[in-house]
Amino acid sequence: MNRKLILKFLSILTVIISLFLCLPAGIALYYNDLRTFHAIAMPLAIFFPIALAFSFIIKIEKDSTVTAREGFLLVTLGWITASLYGCLPFYFSGAIPSFTDCYFETISGFSTTGASILKNIECLPKALLFWRSLTHWLGGMGIVVLAVAVLPLLGVSGNKLLNAEAPGPSVDKLTPRIAGTAKILWAVYTGMTLLLVLLLKTGGMSLFDSLTHSFGTLATGGFSTKNASIAHFNSVYIDAVITVFMILAGINFSIHYKLLTLKLRDVLHNSELRLYLGLIAGTGILIAFNLYSHRVYNILHSVRHAFFQTASIMTTTGFVSADFETWPAFSKSLIFLMMCIGGCAGSTGGGIKVLRILILIRLAGTQFKYLLHPRGVFKTKIESTDQYNKVVYACTGFVFLYFCIVLSVALVTASAGYDLVTSISTALATTGNIGPGFGVVGPVENYSSFPDYVKWTLSFAMLAGRLEVYTVLVIFTPSFWRSY
Amino acid sequence: MNRKLILKFLSILTVIISLFLCLPAGIALYYNDLRTFHAIAMPLAIFFPIALAFSFIIKIEKDSTVTAREGFLLVTLGWITASLYGCLPFYFSGAIPSFTDCYFETISGFSTTGASILKNIECLPKALLFWRSLTHWLGGMGIVVLAVAVLPLLGVSGNKLLNAEAPGPSVDKLTPRIAGTAKILWAVYTGMTLLLVLLLKTGGMSLFDSLTHSFGTLATGGFSTKNASIAHFNSVYIDAVITVFMILAGINFSIHYKLLTLKLRDVLHNSELRLYLGLIAGTGILIAFNLYSHRVYNILHSVRHAFFQTASIMTTTGFVSADFETWPAFSKSLIFLMMCIGGCAGSTGGGIKVLRILILIRLAGTQFKYLLHPRGVFKTKIESTDQYNKVVYACTGFVFLYFCIVLSVALVTASAGYDLVTSISTALATTGNIGPGFGVVGPVENYSSFPDYVKWTLSFAMLAGRLEVYTVLVIFTPSFWRSY
Repeated sequence: MNRKLILKFLSILTVIISLFLCLPAGIALYYNDLRTFHAIAMPLAIFFPIALAFSFIIKIEKDSTVTAREGFLLVTLGWITASLYGCLPFYFSGAIPSFTDCYFETISGFSTTGASILKNIECLPKALLFWRSLTHWLGGMGIVVLAVAVLPLLGVSGNKLLNAEAPGPSVDKLTPRIAGTAKILWAVYTGMTLLLVLLLKTGGMSLFDSLTHSFGTLATGGFSTKNASIAHFNSVYIDAVITVFMILAGINFSIHYKLLTLKLRDVLHNSELRLYLGLIAGTGILIAFNLYSHRVYNILHSVRHAFFQTASIMTTTGFVSADFETWPAFSKSLIFLMMCIGGCAGSTGGGIKVLRILILIRLAGTQFKYLLHPRGVFKTKIESTDQYNKVVYACTGFVFLYFCIVLSVALVTASAGYDLVTSISTALATTGNIGPGFGVVGPVENYSSFPDYVKWTLSFAMLAGRLEVYTVLVIFTPSFWRSY
Repeated sequence: MNRKLILKFLSILTVIISLFLCLPAGIALYYNDLRTFHAIAMPLAIFFPIALAFSFIIKIEKDSTVTAREGFLLVTLGWITASLYGCLPFYFSGAIPSFTDCYFETISGFSTTGASILKNIECLPKALLFWRSLTHWLGGMGIVVLAVAVLPLLGVSGNKLLNAEAPGPSVDKLTPRIAGTAKILWAVYTGMTLLLVLLLKTGGMSLFDSLTHSFGTLATGGFSTKNASIAHFNSVYIDAVITVFMILAGINFSIHYKLLTLKLRDVLHNSELRLYLGLIAGTGILIAFNLYSHRVYNILHSVRHAFFQTASIMTTTGFVSADFETWPAFSKSLIFLMMCIGGCAGSTGGGIKVLRILILIRLAGTQFKYLLHPRGVFKTKIESTDQYNKVVYACTGFVFLYFCIVLSVALVTASAGYDLVTSISTALATTGNIGPGFGVVGPVENYSSFPDYVKWTLSFAMLAGRLEVYTVLVIFTPSFWRSY
């Protein structure tokens, strides 16, 4: 294990986060909120110089590459470091008294979960609300992809990092150099965020709310600056705009790049995209019909809330336009089902991902052929890969481990005395990086009531879910630590 | 498609069921219950002669073999025919007025589910209660395996049938001829049933109750002749005996044969068996500890009910020794989790089966090795098979389709306005052939409140679950009906 490399990487990461921390510090000054400014400036003053010094002092060999094993450790430690560092402003300001809660809120931010322990969001200082939403935005495209765009400057290959952060058959190489890909993705991400800010501002939101909600939307995070989430604004226009952008954020970002470069054929023939849009459309229509037939809303609002909530849960954002806990049983079951799917691979969304569901559907389809023609040879079609077995095994193993984590987390939650629906939906909502669930963690509730050991377990689930399970779990296998 | 063969098979099946129907007819006469005797004698008088005539009239070629496609159709139609025929006594006697309910109760019997629509079981005539439990026993080892032992007399190979009824890597060939294997399995099954009857009789049960509960136990069915299920007898001895026999019934029956023939090494090295027993022991201890620490029972009764309920749910029997709906949240979550597993492959238990969980665990383990050594070649160890890929694909496809059915059934149930816990546990309890679930279908409740369309959906789920999903679903694929 190259310890120097790991230390250097963590130092650079701390420097990057420090730079972003200057933004809320500036906002605190702008609002003349000196108490919050000090809470942000204190960790900055301590860790920024240390990290900067370390990132220059530590010398690594010019052409050192990151092994798979180092990649997993780097990424996991990176996210933990970011959360530990990023939660200090909350702690020092006293806005969130318990350290457990501070860490929970920050990892919930970085992992783009959006599960909050805050009972009254609106009483938080604006600077901290901004930082809270900014953690979403940074986590969204991956703190590490950001670092990937910087690391090559140091002569270190970043391929392994990108693979550790987004394993599976997801990362299309848009340019021959991985750093080039990372830069393109970040440019698309930033561009879309700015467009959404503009659209929300036009709809009557303040610049502050536009920015924070854009961060939450593009990152599929779900932190709002309002207690009632998006329902606070009570605007069909804002609901519609955010619905569209949540759906966009749940699409593989390389698709957006292809759209921009007018490679329309690639886009139209992408079967994951088609399944993803089909699922949202189908579920949205079913829920809208169910809401309307039960006279919950009129036809306009049935469609509005049905599609908003479907997009919000399916993309794992977690914004709330209406309290879906009060909806008819059929709509609630559909939302529960959506919690098990998630966005597209290569998007900022969490969950199992549509691509894996697609692979499983095709695998099951091939089985029917085998049953009828036992001696035939059939291959499941999966785009742009010839490593058929590896993809299927990785996908199967992932889904299995994913549900193992979900069920274990549900058991831990239940051990604190919570009912079945709360336990399972909490586990799904954190591992899938969604945010709201049912019962105690319903759309108008929060995570504050859980005891500390449950909160730490949920923090682990959010991290494991965000890093696609393997990256975190492999570190706990004995063979990871065996010298080779 | 060989229509003659299908018709001949269904006729023979009807003859076999007719012979077994004579038993409850005899019991009705013994108790001088002429009304019930007529209800049983009526379908017998109509269908027995017809079926007997057909099975002699229809001539098939001497060496005709059953194709895979014919096998699936035969088995599915066989179970449907058996249920349609077997439900007539309930209907004609007027004991269950609705035909939907009669069919539901009978397929619940044959599929060894044990879900009942009866609100007051004890008011049913004894002869019908006996028939109800006998459907379990017949369904347990498979109506068709019974036929397999008979079919070779007609010169038809039964391999395809056995495969269609129990696909996956489960059927060990104990003898070179499949009919020989079927006979051995039935002999073991009958022997164990008689042993249990003897043990229960010793414990103070009447002969009638001993017989019916032995049928329900060995078949992992769960129909009782008492409203309170096994809790009615309130005996530690009976609970303990039934717990042991439920666990035995959930073990691959070829293991029992190996035990009898003293092939102990095979038994000790069977990893599915070890995982199965480990899961029951682990869950039982956790629940017992949870019950005791919450002061629900004293230590003896905590252990007694914990192990009884764990064995009952895990083996998909569904007997009830205590109302687990009133247990602490952690125990309930563990029971819910057990509902997703099921017995061993090749046992009378339903569900996903422990063997498939084992394959998934090993697959996930292999993935960790791949992550650390991306260029390595690793094979997941699965006993007695060299068709590695086929097994893994079949297993993955199965689990995926299984949960697709569970979630679809849950949605249909929810569409009738039932809450999440009821909908999901109903789907799990029927697809997994368990019986009781949570909420409306809890251990002291029944399935009578559902509307008819939900009952038909659940009947389909019970059949699909019993025939391991593929056998039923493949019939609905277009390529099944394409001429070839």
